[in-house]
Amino acid sequence: MSAAFNPIVETLSPPPVPSVFAWAKAYQGDLGPLIDLSQAVPGYAPHPQLLQWLGEAAQSADCAGYGPIEGDPALRDAYAEDIAALYEANVTRANIHITSGCNQAFMCALMAVAGAGDTIALTDPFYFNHESTLAMLGIRHELLQLDPENSFLPDMASVNDMLSRGIKALALVSPNNPTGTVYPAALLREIFDACRDAGVWLILDETYRDFLPSGQQPHDLLSPGNWEDNLVLLYSFSKSFCIPGHRLGAVTAGPNMIAQIAKVMDNMQICAPRAPQAAVAKAISALSEWRDENRLEIFRRTEALKEAFKALPGWSMDSLGAYFAFVRHPFESLASAEVAEKLAKQVGVLAIPGAYFGARHENYLRFAFANADVQTISKLPARLSKFSI
Amino acid sequence: MSAAFNPIVETLSPPPVPSVFAWAKAYQGDLGPLIDLSQAVPGYAPHPQLLQWLGEAAQSADCAGYGPIEGDPALRDAYAEDIAALYEANVTRANIHITSGCNQAFMCALMAVAGAGDTIALTDPFYFNHESTLAMLGIRHELLQLDPENSFLPDMASVNDMLSRGIKALALVSPNNPTGTVYPAALLREIFDACRDAGVWLILDETYRDFLPSGQQPHDLLSPGNWEDNLVLLYSFSKSFCIPGHRLGAVTAGPNMIAQIAKVMDNMQICAPRAPQAAVAKAISALSEWRDENRLEIFRRTEALKEAFKALPGWSMDSLGAYFAFVRHPFESLASAEVAEKLAKQVGVLAIPGAYFGARHENYLRFAFANADVQTISKLPARLSKFSI
Repeated sequence: MSAAFNPIVETLSPPPVPSVFAWAKAYQGDLGPLIDLSQAVPGYAPHPQLLQWLGEAAQSADCAGYGPIEGDPALRDAYAEDIAALYEANVTRANIHITSGCNQAFMCALMAVAGAGDTIALTDPFYFNHESTLAMLGIRHELLQLDPENSFLPDMASVNDMLSRGIKALALVSPNNPTGTVYPAALLREIFDACRDAGVWLILDETYRDFLPSGQQPHDLLSPGNWEDNLVLLYSFSKSFCIPGHRLGAVTAGPNMIAQIAKVMDNMQICAPRAPQAAVAKAISALSEWRDENRLEIFRRTEALKEAFKALPGWSMDSLGAYFAFVRHPFESLASAEVAEKLAKQVGVLAIPGAYFGARHENYLRFAFANADVQTISKLPARLSKFSI
Repeated sequence: MSAAFNPIVETLSPPPVPSVFAWAKAYQGDLGPLIDLSQAVPGYAPHPQLLQWLGEAAQSADCAGYGPIEGDPALRDAYAEDIAALYEANVTRANIHITSGCNQAFMCALMAVAGAGDTIALTDPFYFNHESTLAMLGIRHELLQLDPENSFLPDMASVNDMLSRGIKALALVSPNNPTGTVYPAALLREIFDACRDAGVWLILDETYRDFLPSGQQPHDLLSPGNWEDNLVLLYSFSKSFCIPGHRLGAVTAGPNMIAQIAKVMDNMQICAPRAPQAAVAKAISALSEWRDENRLEIFRRTEALKEAFKALPGWSMDSLGAYFAFVRHPFESLASAEVAEKLAKQVGVLAIPGAYFGARHENYLRFAFANADVQTISKLPARLSKFSI
């Protein structure tokens, strides 16, 4: 007799990115190479020095052995120093837990604060893996509706309403995925203070933090005062160092939260892979100029995308920011997945359907423009103007 | 106001291995170097060829990018071929999901079959991370009691009783952690048939499969017949290839199970790290002789440990197998953690307290002898005979 699956996992949708890649395979190349603006990855290579360090670490016998659950001390120190400098804050190794990427950082932080039956607040649109991670753990969600009229930013009345509903944590992403919106420091401060008053965790995913246009301090939440009992910051080394395949992320939080996450991580995978930890520990300060150059490069791509959509009547770029544009397509009666599928197959442009970020967003597509250079982006108007349904 | 932690995570014990390492730090070295028989890691270096491949892969731009959630096709193919040859079975890429180590393989398989409130059967003694993974997910457990009188093997009456209690899966480990017991193929077949009759999953953790003394086929569960709807095999590349720091494991199951696990993995960490996947894909067939030699080396260590304890009155080696010995200590009135702590601090011998594998096992210590060579193991009698409480 066949054994049964866990119904909450069985009824989850399949992972979204592979389904989008499958559409791309049907594109015949008639209009030139595929323009892949689907997955949030930088479309340039890692720094050669980092590749060399990765190679050296991976061939060492030392990195073949287990490391501390919380992460290698050298990386925890280097990252704490980086965070301390950026936020002018007192952050040390004890505040850092290394993970295998930022999805894992989110899952660990989430499990440390909520179990099945608890409720977490997300924004709508949300980052799809946040929503599906909650779902597979049997954790409920409340959605904070964001709208283009307010630049897809939360308003405080809705935040306060949400905080009164017994949620365990509010999870935000800034710069945002999928909208690209950068949350102003003053708004983050106001939201955090409200979370603190309500005894609720603020989980802030800062995966795209290094791509703020001006390199400004994203917020002052780590300034003196007791932030450690209410705040968790999440980060990914994948985007800034172009190494998603090495799976490396980090949590910044109070030592009590780090201790809870260590228990979860020990069960989930014992420790993050050692070799990328050793290499990135060196790269954080050594490659800071290179990271700055990439920040500028991503900004040039932002501008190129803005120009590209100006030339396209019917398409409305409702939001554009650090890594993403959230664009209203002109086919109101069609589901976003249908539009994205035809777009991929007909003209070889790959984007993520808006509905993957919440059912309200059928009129949108997400373009992850960091994945294409300025020249490639400039070909978008010609491609999209040939597109018809 | 401080935000709250998830009580089921907050009340979990801290990870066991670091607490044992902490005791070791207090050992003054009076009797010679520490003899670390705590963590289940091979005490020899990875093959130089594997280290070279790891280095080459890690420094490639290709491995810096995301890979398929289920794992790189080359590794899935190579591992499927390995499994197919070992079990003389029809196993293909579609049956394989690559994970970051075997703890993650267990967690993924577990989540695919059970959610909070469901019940899973474990053995008692259990592998501690299995028990704590269930606990942190709010999944209940039933314990199948194993005893030295029956070589720590399950008996069918208890298995059948367990299967009648509405469990979603029975999780077994063979060769066993902590007892080392190798489950006979006929017993595994009988248990699996009973699981199938009951519509229950058998999750079989085979992390130590490569260390069966004679290299025999561990069981016939993959023989023709419909195994895919009831069986999940778990494996770790950490032990066989001496690369725990690279975090690589695998699930073998039916394609429907692989599809569920892919959803879980996408949320948990998108994909396993790419560089070790590329390297191990080459190593599986290239290093098969080296793996055979290590199997023999581990067997020599097994024999050395058996000799060592013969010389120690009061200590009773109730179980000895592929990677572990489960030894009854002579201090009946003391808790196993107290014995292990004193052992570490006084005579520099590191073992894991029996109670970490279940409350009934206060009279036991687990010795992971793969971590020490024959010469080191031969020093145990002198050390332990100097030990007093």
